[in-house]
Amino acid sequence: MTAEVAIIMGSVSDWETMKHACEQLDELEISYIKQVVSAHRTPDLMFEFAEGAREKGIKIIIAGAGGAAHLPGMVAAKTTLPVIGVPVKSRTLNGLDSLLSIVQMPAGVPVATTAIGQAGATNAGLLAAQMLSMYDLGIAQKLAEKRANMREIVMESSDQLG
Amino acid sequence: MTAEVAIIMGSVSDWETMKHACEQLDELEISYIKQVVSAHRTPDLMFEFAEGAREKGIKIIIAGAGGAAHLPGMVAAKTTLPVIGVPVKSRTLNGLDSLLSIVQMPAGVPVATTAIGQAGATNAGLLAAQMLSMYDLGIAQKLAEKRANMREIVMESSDQLG
Amino acid sequence: MTAEVAIIMGSVSDWETMKHACEQLDELEISYIKQVVSAHRTPDLMFEFAEGAREKGIKIIIAGAGGAAHLPGMVAAKTTLPVIGVPVKSRTLNGLDSLLSIVQMPAGVPVATTAIGQAGATNAGLLAAQMLSMYDLGIAQKLAEKRANMREIVMESSDQLG
Amino acid sequence: MTAEVAIIMGSVSDWETMKHACEQLDELEISYIKQVVSAHRTPDLMFEFAEGAREKGIKIIIAGAGGAAHLPGMVAAKTTLPVIGVPVKSRTLNGLDSLLSIVQMPAGVPVATTAIGQAGATNAGLLAAQMLSMYDLGIAQKLAEKRANMREIVMESSDQLG
Amino acid sequence: MTAEVAIIMGSVSDWETMKHACEQLDELEISYIKQVVSAHRTPDLMFEFAEGAREKGIKIIIAGAGGAAHLPGMVAAKTTLPVIGVPVKSRTLNGLDSLLSIVQMPAGVPVATTAIGQAGATNAGLLAAQMLSMYDLGIAQKLAEKRANMREIVMESSDQLG
Amino acid sequence: MTAEVAIIMGSVSDWETMKHACEQLDELEISYIKQVVSAHRTPDLMFEFAEGAREKGIKIIIAGAGGAAHLPGMVAAKTTLPVIGVPVKSRTLNGLDSLLSIVQMPAGVPVATTAIGQAGATNAGLLAAQMLSMYDLGIAQKLAEKRANMREIVMESSDQLG
Amino acid sequence: MTAEVAIIMGSVSDWETMKHACEQLDELEISYIKQVVSAHRTPDLMFEFAEGAREKGIKIIIAGAGGAAHLPGMVAAKTTLPVIGVPVKSRTLNGLDSLLSIVQMPAGVPVATTAIGQAGATNAGLLAAQMLSMYDLGIAQKLAEKRANMREIVMESSDQLG
Amino acid sequence: MTAEVAIIMGSVSDWETMKHACEQLDELEISYIKQVVSAHRTPDLMFEFAEGAREKGIKIIIAGAGGAAHLPGMVAAKTTLPVIGVPVKSRTLNGLDSLLSIVQMPAGVPVATTAIGQAGATNAGLLAAQMLSMYDLGIAQKLAEKRANMREIVMESSDQLG
Repeated sequence: MTAEVAIIMGSVSDWETMKHACEQLDELEISYIKQVVSAHRTPDLMFEFAEGAREKGIKIIIAGAGGAAHLPGMVAAKTTLPVIGVPVKSRTLNGLDSLLSIVQMPAGVPVATTAIGQAGATNAGLLAAQMLSMYDLGIAQKLAEKRANMREIVMESSDQLG
Repeated sequence: MTAEVAIIMGSVSDWETMKHACEQLDELEISYIKQVVSAHRTPDLMFEFAEGAREKGIKIIIAGAGGAAHLPGMVAAKTTLPVIGVPVKSRTLNGLDSLLSIVQMPAGVPVATTAIGQAGATNAGLLAAQMLSMYDLGIAQKLAEKRANMREIVMESSDQLG
Repeated sequence: MTAEVAIIMGSVSDWETMKHACEQLDELEISYIKQVVSAHRTPDLMFEFAEGAREKGIKIIIAGAGGAAHLPGMVAAKTTLPVIGVPVKSRTLNGLDSLLSIVQMPAGVPVATTAIGQAGATNAGLLAAQMLSMYDLGIAQKLAEKRANMREIVMESSDQLG
Repeated sequence: MTAEVAIIMGSVSDWETMKHACEQLDELEISYIKQVVSAHRTPDLMFEFAEGAREKGIKIIIAGAGGAAHLPGMVAAKTTLPVIGVPVKSRTLNGLDSLLSIVQMPAGVPVATTAIGQAGATNAGLLAAQMLSMYDLGIAQKLAEKRANMREIVMESSDQLG
Repeated sequence: MTAEVAIIMGSVSDWETMKHACEQLDELEISYIKQVVSAHRTPDLMFEFAEGAREKGIKIIIAGAGGAAHLPGMVAAKTTLPVIGVPVKSRTLNGLDSLLSIVQMPAGVPVATTAIGQAGATNAGLLAAQMLSMYDLGIAQKLAEKRANMREIVMESSDQLG
Repeated sequence: MTAEVAIIMGSVSDWETMKHACEQLDELEISYIKQVVSAHRTPDLMFEFAEGAREKGIKIIIAGAGGAAHLPGMVAAKTTLPVIGVPVKSRTLNGLDSLLSIVQMPAGVPVATTAIGQAGATNAGLLAAQMLSMYDLGIAQKLAEKRANMREIVMESSDQLG
Repeated sequence: MTAEVAIIMGSVSDWETMKHACEQLDELEISYIKQVVSAHRTPDLMFEFAEGAREKGIKIIIAGAGGAAHLPGMVAAKTTLPVIGVPVKSRTLNGLDSLLSIVQMPAGVPVATTAIGQAGATNAGLLAAQMLSMYDLGIAQKLAEKRANMREIVMESSDQLG
Repeated sequence: MTAEVAIIMGSVSDWETMKHACEQLDELEISYIKQVVSAHRTPDLMFEFAEGAREKGIKIIIAGAGGAAHLPGMVAAKTTLPVIGVPVKSRTLNGLDSLLSIVQMPAGVPVATTAIGQAGATNAGLLAAQMLSMYDLGIAQKLAEKRANMREIVMESSDQLG
């Protein structure tokens, strides 16, 4: 059986960010593969990967990149599977360049963009799960439980103020 | 039978933008409902809507809003269905405020954000279709055809230069 | 007797910022409650809190949040009490996202926004006191004294130059 | 009897924006005065105005200004009444300069900042009313009715889509 | 004989901008081809184009694109010829998104970026000529004459003041 | 004899920046006074200071401030002496707020703005000297020597590369 | 007798902005020359102009430019006279590029920067006059009268509200 | 024999950035000279350098500068050789000022701009090599090998994830 989600990133240095997507999928027991695929340094690999993803049974691609972050958009250009883009915080412009490069896609080729950095990677994992939950009630149930847990943690946290 | 997609927007003035999402769904023959739901002016309606969406058979919610655009994020807080957020171009800051208000969600509650304005609305419709295409080969096929059409149009358009 | 001011924040990590609002109220002997209430993780609690605030005798709500900071605006949507919003400095965009998410509210639902971070939290406490001072001459007197103290401190501080 | 609210603005050209604050107060039958007071062109008048406001019975000052918008902050430096600042859209930077000049006040002297432009002016009027509603149930009642009206309008507006 | 420069653009609507590059090359009698090639709508064509450019005798590629402007960077990833990127002014963010998407390339794959819009397109044409002038004294001479003409025009233009 | 230049700053914490203005004046043997004067915490002192400056023989006022930096502009509103504004780097927005608050003055009341932070403070001292050099050839001579020194330092510094 | 002020601008298209500096000098009867001098198109003329300015009796140089606005800073590099820089509103980035290019000068070479656009040009004229007023009581007197006039106009303008 | 590339920078402190350009040229065995040349502190040296570069056999000039980064544009104004501009990260605005000052050149005088900071310097070296590769197959071959190496490194790096 194949993985349902593919998590790719433009550089090994993006791992510190992107591992937070993996953590969510691990916790939700959703199968995934992870790989470094660079739009600029391995363009052919990227196209091959994107083109073959649906056939391999992958349902969702999560792509993280920083700076002139072309990976999510170019993968999206080569597949009609949903692509989730995570803007990795960049060294000089704090990820504003990554965000605009990912989110401002032209009409015709969408990228589902999440927040800059770690929160965005976590949410990319969750968003993939939410997409799968459209047809998978088990995942829907687990997501509801995670929400309930979050709620509990917040409600108890007021005790730590002051 | 219920609609598969719900398209909501914070104000009737967002329709000029959001109708581009509807056009995509019409073209792809995906059923949808459309409604004005304001985070700030109809908060209870918003919660009721979001909370009941999954039960009604809705699979994806597309929410467009401008300025301090809280609608997509708050709907996302009340459902585990995938929520697509469209930043509507705002009067003063050109939609940069809308974009940041929608995309910078905290870990735990994702919003799949698209581009500012009309392109983002078009892509929200397509992204919804791409999500449905994970399990619906008919939609996958139609999306592939739309891509092929786009390709043709671009390739022929060089004749119009100069 | 109930508290006059409620200080809420989206996450326990906002306390480092929001405690500066509490310090001002402590100093001015204005009663307050403090609580973690998250727009995205405890939306129902947030609505319940905002809806019941006036009845409980609360007069002013101070709400701090960062990133896609929806807490102040959503609380404001559920009460007609004055709501003061404090943009907490965010990890990636230094609080510019927090500021725009809080201040750019649509016509109909105001949020009284202060500066990003610690100065904004301090001023939220003072602004609440200034609102109460409209009818409470004791508070007005204390505020005048605090201003006089600030003036003294500034005037003596020139000695420390060089 | 004196006015409860003073609406001042840095230039007669700000009237197009600031009249929206007046409209709200008119509708809510809250008394107000309106005046052009420029921080840079009539600094002494500004100080005199701010210093004398509380004695004259004014409870809230709404100040609108654009560009290097010093009026709200300087008035706030000369009174302990609550001051609401409205960033007027500026010719070159769309009001981002106005917003930052008004909102980024140092600890000690708060300005309650609203959105850039017309929405911000409307909300300044409403925010003043909300402050008065802390002790005036009649105003609280009227504000609740306005909210209910807004809700109705939104709920009916879905019919206009498409 | 083949063209020395290729001018490509992501959409036929970029022509209004990119024609200014052509004008410079026409004036300098440098041969060029022009074509619409879209990174997102014709990704395979783009790769094929970029990969084959050197063999066809093309020496420089000028690529204009707007929004999430991936064309220049992706072409640069598939050739070691110099690629000049022109950020086309975008509808919502005035080309700031185009600029950052083009210029913030990672180490290893450069794009020679020019100014946003028409000035950038003009300069892309001139920059291509300047590259060719490294080995072509005829072009160097023509560029020197154009500079001299510009100087004359500026020096005479003072008469038009007032 | 009185000082020719007054260096004021909004807070004692601005000294780390503003001392660089003093260093230039010390080096050029131009007399100056330095003082903490806060627009928001000592508004009356500020007005008194600005109003009396010309009579006391002061020729130029250098004012440094951060955040909603109103000091330079408000001093400029109360004197017709040249006022040089130094945007101090702010905690959250890196001085962009300081810069816009100082430079975007309305027609009628100029502030001569320098760069954000230490370079701006150094240049404020030099700019004051340049103004005095219009009529004082001794200062003009010293400035020319400083420029020559800078040139020497740069020209020798290539030896340190690599 | 020579002119006291030189007003230069990078392009004849800057005249619409820079004429506002001339108007102020005309009104104050301060002699000036005006000229188009382009940093990029007439660099030698620019250097010659800047280098010879002090000898010709010019006391202050006002330089307006847009985009990558190098004129004020480069003139400042070639003279120790005070240079006032006016950021002209640019086509794509509204003058933010002009502002940063002019104001962010390195330590050693100051440019006295004013606001973007027309207000900045007006203030450049006034700032030059204020510099001259350090030693010229006639100009100081005229400036005081202009301030008084501005004050009158503002004070009477409240009648136009509503 | 002379050098083919000249690498200049505005300050010795830019070396940490610009050395990355040198590394690329070293690796590719392309001859170069390196020098500190400041637009503002050694303007005459800069002009002399730029004016004489072509005659000395230099083919490409790489210029790095930060803040109001005028060096690349002013060098470009004095030569028709291709000039590559590297925006050095600045202390206050993270290099956004450097980027805009370098890239927003007016029509007529292009600067080939690369990314902010170290990546931009690396790419400046590579871009120079790519320009030379138009006529030098040896360099073209080496560049192709470097690309292949990069590809290998990326493809192997997936093993380091997790």
